[in-house]
Amino acid sequence: MSNAFTLNRILGWAFGQNQFFERIFGPMSDIDIISKYREQFVTHLQARTQITDPRNLYEPVQYILGLGGKRLRPILALMTAEAFGGKAEKAMDAALAIEMFHNFSLVHDDIMDDAPLRRGKTTVHEKWDINTGILSGDAMLILSYQFFEGYPVKTYFELTKLFSKTALEVCEGQQYDVDFETRDDVTIPEYLKMIEYKTSVLVAAAMKMGAIVADADPKDADAIYEFGRNLGIAFQLQDDFLDAFGNPETFGKQIGGDIIENKKTYLYLKALQGATKDDKEGLLHLYSIKPEDSSTKVEAVKTIFEESGAVEETRKAIKKYTQMAFRALDETKLPEQSKALLQQFGESLMERTV
Amino acid sequence: MSNAFTLNRILGWAFGQNQFFERIFGPMSDIDIISKYREQFVTHLQARTQITDPRNLYEPVQYILGLGGKRLRPILALMTAEAFGGKAEKAMDAALAIEMFHNFSLVHDDIMDDAPLRRGKTTVHEKWDINTGILSGDAMLILSYQFFEGYPVKTYFELTKLFSKTALEVCEGQQYDVDFETRDDVTIPEYLKMIEYKTSVLVAAAMKMGAIVADADPKDADAIYEFGRNLGIAFQLQDDFLDAFGNPETFGKQIGGDIIENKKTYLYLKALQGATKDDKEGLLHLYSIKPEDSSTKVEAVKTIFEESGAVEETRKAIKKYTQMAFRALDETKLPEQSKALLQQFGESLMERTV
Repeated sequence: MSNAFTLNRILGWAFGQNQFFERIFGPMSDIDIISKYREQFVTHLQARTQITDPRNLYEPVQYILGLGGKRLRPILALMTAEAFGGKAEKAMDAALAIEMFHNFSLVHDDIMDDAPLRRGKTTVHEKWDINTGILSGDAMLILSYQFFEGYPVKTYFELTKLFSKTALEVCEGQQYDVDFETRDDVTIPEYLKMIEYKTSVLVAAAMKMGAIVADADPKDADAIYEFGRNLGIAFQLQDDFLDAFGNPETFGKQIGGDIIENKKTYLYLKALQGATKDDKEGLLHLYSIKPEDSSTKVEAVKTIFEESGAVEETRKAIKKYTQMAFRALDETKLPEQSKALLQQFGESLMERTV
Repeated sequence: MSNAFTLNRILGWAFGQNQFFERIFGPMSDIDIISKYREQFVTHLQARTQITDPRNLYEPVQYILGLGGKRLRPILALMTAEAFGGKAEKAMDAALAIEMFHNFSLVHDDIMDDAPLRRGKTTVHEKWDINTGILSGDAMLILSYQFFEGYPVKTYFELTKLFSKTALEVCEGQQYDVDFETRDDVTIPEYLKMIEYKTSVLVAAAMKMGAIVADADPKDADAIYEFGRNLGIAFQLQDDFLDAFGNPETFGKQIGGDIIENKKTYLYLKALQGATKDDKEGLLHLYSIKPEDSSTKVEAVKTIFEESGAVEETRKAIKKYTQMAFRALDETKLPEQSKALLQQFGESLMERTV
């Protein structure tokens, strides 16, 4: 989920406008609320992550956490805690653990992907070196666990157990992603499991942690996990879709990036299933080359995506997972107002067409 | 602590001889007891670490854990649990967590050191690749935490809190070690802190965990931690000493390896303090070169180590930390028999002269 959100831009803009808006329009809007959570979280983050000795271990931690990002996961943890009648303050350390872990995974993934940039800035292993990236990343994973230590013992157990399970799934998702690069028999269920593990379980866990610290009914905590999990899958499928069909002027990354890299996305796998024999052969060929000028290839692949019905199938899947998310949300005993806020937040994520 | 132990060889030999010895000599000797713990631990390890999907993530985990090693830390956890009146069985998962973490640190350290061999076999990143080493290592760190989940909630909290603190110190120790390579103003206290963090806190934590699962008096748990910590420092100082002055025929590594690599050990730092002006300059020069034939350099450095009093100082320090260890052991309310067993184990580690 490394793509730029429209939401992010709205949040960034709304950030400085809260007081102005409130004076003119009265009570805070949903976007104001999100921006308020974000501000509180960043304050907490800064207070809790001071650089100590050895500086070469902890400076990179501070650096990557300071690069910003949407803070989507911690905000969801705080929002969920308050939705279930708890205080956001109480969910702060869990939110911090989740954000720390997320950034740990970015540092190690960037080494594995040999990525020079993260959020428009130099990656940790480029700014320092690979060894620093490995070791500071390791420290971040351990620091994540330490952030839970302030909770009552029983809550600590529940949170860290969920955390370990989730963290391991994220590693497994990353491994599946790597494995899929060299496999040509990846199935749709395998692909869905990969994106679920790699991106959506952490969103789901963030929300469930919010529910846990608010002492929500375990059934509700499970339901909110399902909300996050399904929304995360829908979000990732939409990312796949926008990567090929988004608006080049407003989409954060290069359009067709996945196609250029021969990345086996949901669109690609569905196209292989639905295409005519000729188109399937054409697609397999196009996904075996990396021409210098990629524009012809990108257009040819996109045409096959459309004509094979893969675009339609992907739209359907996005809708299906979004609806499953909202059904899970509806099953909770949350007050209607909280449901509406979370649903609106989900919709704002899913409505982006850029 | 990657050196070959004499003890290890004795253990390996004793392993297959238990029944034979018992029939001839009667009750089990201390070495038999250690070998029994080791056997129990390895059985537990094998039962608890089955390979699952994704195989490319978990096969390297199985591989590194299967390379053997002394199992020093888990054995100490089991021994300590029984010394405090608990069952070794109860300490098994904590011992496993410690061993898993130790092996995690080996996998990541071997990447950082670009090491081709570990325990005489190909390292994980050489057998697979660096990315596999990073990701499988990450999974091992998380798996370590999961092994604690079977303990009662309060014990879980105590164990994982100690574990996180220790794990972070190990990372910090590794960072200091890296930092010291390019610094020429490392002090003796800094060096001692580095070896404490890098190697001895994990030994100490293993023993304290044994005490915790046996519901030992917290004061005794702290004292046994001090025993392990001081013994670990003494052990590492002796490693430094043996690296230069051990018996080349029985010492596991090349004699003078640290000198050849210009590694700033306790001997080196003490020599800089105690040497004449000329010798100090000579030593600094010798530590700035890497001649193809190193034998003249090694001998010259060893002479300065002797004549500066560094050898004597190192012997004294080893003795001091060993005695501090035994004093800590003596402070516990352990039965005399258990104290004797642990002291004997400590002595067997420290008496090696090879």
